Amino acid sequence: MTTMASTKSISIYYADDLCRAEKRNVGIFKLGFSRFGVPGIVREKLVVQANLGGSSKSVDMINGKKVNGVVPSSGARGGEVMKQVGVHEPVHAWLMGTFVEDRFVYRQTFVIRSYEIGPDKTATMETLMNLLQETALNHVTSSGLAGNGFGATREMSLRKLIWVVTRIHVQVDKYSSWGDVVEIDTWVDAAGKNGMRRDWIIRDRNSQRIITKATSTWVIMNRETRRLSKIPDEVRKEVQPFYLDRVAIPTADLDCEKIDKLNDETADRIRSGLAPRWSDMDANQHVNNVKYIGWILESVPIDVLEDYNLTSMTLEYRRECRQSNVLESLTTMAPKMSEDSNKWTDKTRQELESTHLLRMQADKAEIVRARSVWQSKHKHMI
Amino acid sequence: MTTMASTKSISIYYADDLCRAEKRNVGIFKLGFSRFGVPGIVREKLVVQANLGGSSKSVDMINGKKVNGVVPSSGARGGEVMKQVGVHEPVHAWLMGTFVEDRFVYRQTFVIRSYEIGPDKTATMETLMNLLQETALNHVTSSGLAGNGFGATREMSLRKLIWVVTRIHVQVDKYSSWGDVVEIDTWVDAAGKNGMRRDWIIRDRNSQRIITKATSTWVIMNRETRRLSKIPDEVRKEVQPFYLDRVAIPTADLDCEKIDKLNDETADRIRSGLAPRWSDMDANQHVNNVKYIGWILESVPIDVLEDYNLTSMTLEYRRECRQSNVLESLTTMAPKMSEDSNKWTDKTRQELESTHLLRMQADKAEIVRARSVWQSKHKHMI
Repeated sequence: MTTMASTKSISIYYADDLCRAEKRNVGIFKLGFSRFGVPGIVREKLVVQANLGGSSKSVDMINGKKVNGVVPSSGARGGEVMKQVGVHEPVHAWLMGTFVEDRFVYRQTFVIRSYEIGPDKTATMETLMNLLQETALNHVTSSGLAGNGFGATREMSLRKLIWVVTRIHVQVDKYSSWGDVVEIDTWVDAAGKNGMRRDWIIRDRNSQRIITKATSTWVIMNRETRRLSKIPDEVRKEVQPFYLDRVAIPTADLDCEKIDKLNDETADRIRSGLAPRWSDMDANQHVNNVKYIGWILESVPIDVLEDYNLTSMTLEYRRECRQSNVLESLTTMAPKMSEDSNKWTDKTRQELESTHLLRMQADKAEIVRARSVWQSKHKHMI
Repeated sequence: MTTMASTKSISIYYADDLCRAEKRNVGIFKLGFSRFGVPGIVREKLVVQANLGGSSKSVDMINGKKVNGVVPSSGARGGEVMKQVGVHEPVHAWLMGTFVEDRFVYRQTFVIRSYEIGPDKTATMETLMNLLQETALNHVTSSGLAGNGFGATREMSLRKLIWVVTRIHVQVDKYSSWGDVVEIDTWVDAAGKNGMRRDWIIRDRNSQRIITKATSTWVIMNRETRRLSKIPDEVRKEVQPFYLDRVAIPTADLDCEKIDKLNDETADRIRSGLAPRWSDMDANQHVNNVKYIGWILESVPIDVLEDYNLTSMTLEYRRECRQSNVLESLTTMAPKMSEDSNKWTDKTRQELESTHLLRMQADKAEIVRARSVWQSKHKHMI
């Protein structure tokens, strides 16, 4: 996959949200096996979507005994109906998530909440990334594969392995407003020999229009040595039955180019002294990787934040960050050039492209590189 | 009400989350009337809880024509069952909220999400406050009273009036973990002649144990003149049918004492240079009032944040805050003395009480006063 290209050049990987694995042993185990109840009961309780028809792939290797893991908790094929929810229903019923398309796709529904919208009254990029993360984790848990970690399978947990995200690319066509209902589909596929790709599609529940697409690349790391690992055969056997050969973003539309590393000379704006707050820390006392977005935006000019929509963002994670670290956010903005020529067009005047770097203030070590595209909110602005 | 005591002494009130009203006209109106559909349809779609029995109060003045407003969208009396959810169901069905106890209590269910937990792996105080805010706003919208503002009724909107919170007090018995399902009940009552009290109870859905209680005091302000207003008769007629004479926190357990205003001399710790980020701004480009909690915690010693649970917090809102403001956070911590004596007991050694002030760095104008109680996580610590 083109999105895997960057993986080879990275020597240190880190994804904070996945590293919480170490300390969550008991909690996750309970979530995966006790609270969800026995499969037969869970199946009855699932909140299910309308019939969408199955894919043409065989499901033999997913349902039943051939699956390397517990029996999947639901055999939803093209739609079930919502059943009466009693007092002691499993958490599943409240997650508003279910498998669709012969269990290759996990779908979860969310209502955009009052506190998830930003200054322009629509969901923020952080909100979207949070919802993507939540859907991915619930996909793993609901698949019955969850080990004792944040998204890790059981065979991974036995080997102290965790997933770390190296790159994520999100394209937003429309940001939802408070009270809007969105439906997030997610699935996984192989990415090269030792990576996994996870894609997402967000639909507006009412119009069924696709409003956001995202793709991400994951590799496996030993949580103690912090070294990358190949995917062990046992892990491959667990996840492979879920692989779906489908891309959320066609290769032609992907942002897979290298992101330049900004420095003091190439950056238009540098914002220093960014200190993580206690409330930015996650369960492993690391900064949650969604929080980086807030710091990246700190070096974006306020008139861009106010007058443009962030329509695309690509993040490359390089290094972890702790609360004691003080950060610097660097940004360079330019009109977005059309791809076949370097001419200024009406479109370029309405679109900006920015490059970002988040680095340690002390030793300038890079934490995240990012690239964003901004679309003017005023269509006819020159 | 004792919680109203503070209202009289405050000359400037502000609650950022409510001041978004001005700019949200179109959005809210759509939410309240278009998307929710006609009452008869909404009633069929409501997600409903188990039968809890009705209160002994008459509901005549709530259901049907005597209500000053649109006909309530559901006449739930002691429980309905969840109906099949189709593709174009109203947003109600996804909110997982409903009226219980003869419509005096609004109840909403939430699953604690992966990104809502903090360093100790449980939901943060910010998460709780966000969920309380969300439940309160959905209560107003679901009641059919919503005007064009953030929680304002239609009669209020006609008069450019908004609700502002002056004080909120939250008592946490247990913080929920990722994947836990919580059930939040909220209701309103009169508070003095011109105030409203809103209470909440959070239950763990599984055990049905009450794990958090909260109460808040609200007054009415003209959103243009920023002056306090009496409750107009027309507004009183709208909200009064929903008043429920019940307190979440018994008066004896309330934190209703005055909160001392800290200064450079009385504060143990002062953390300066706290700058709101773009992502802290809400739809009115003000700081959302839940965000203040993060800044308050910035001046709390790290070992308290790590080794103690925040079991009680009281916030008194004094003044608004914008992105250009730089803030200072002041904290003083002390062992919590038992109330009938000033002796040190085993309990006092395990409990700390802190006083906080959030103020402008430039002119030292106060924004929020707060008081917190902290309980050691290690029960036998000396």
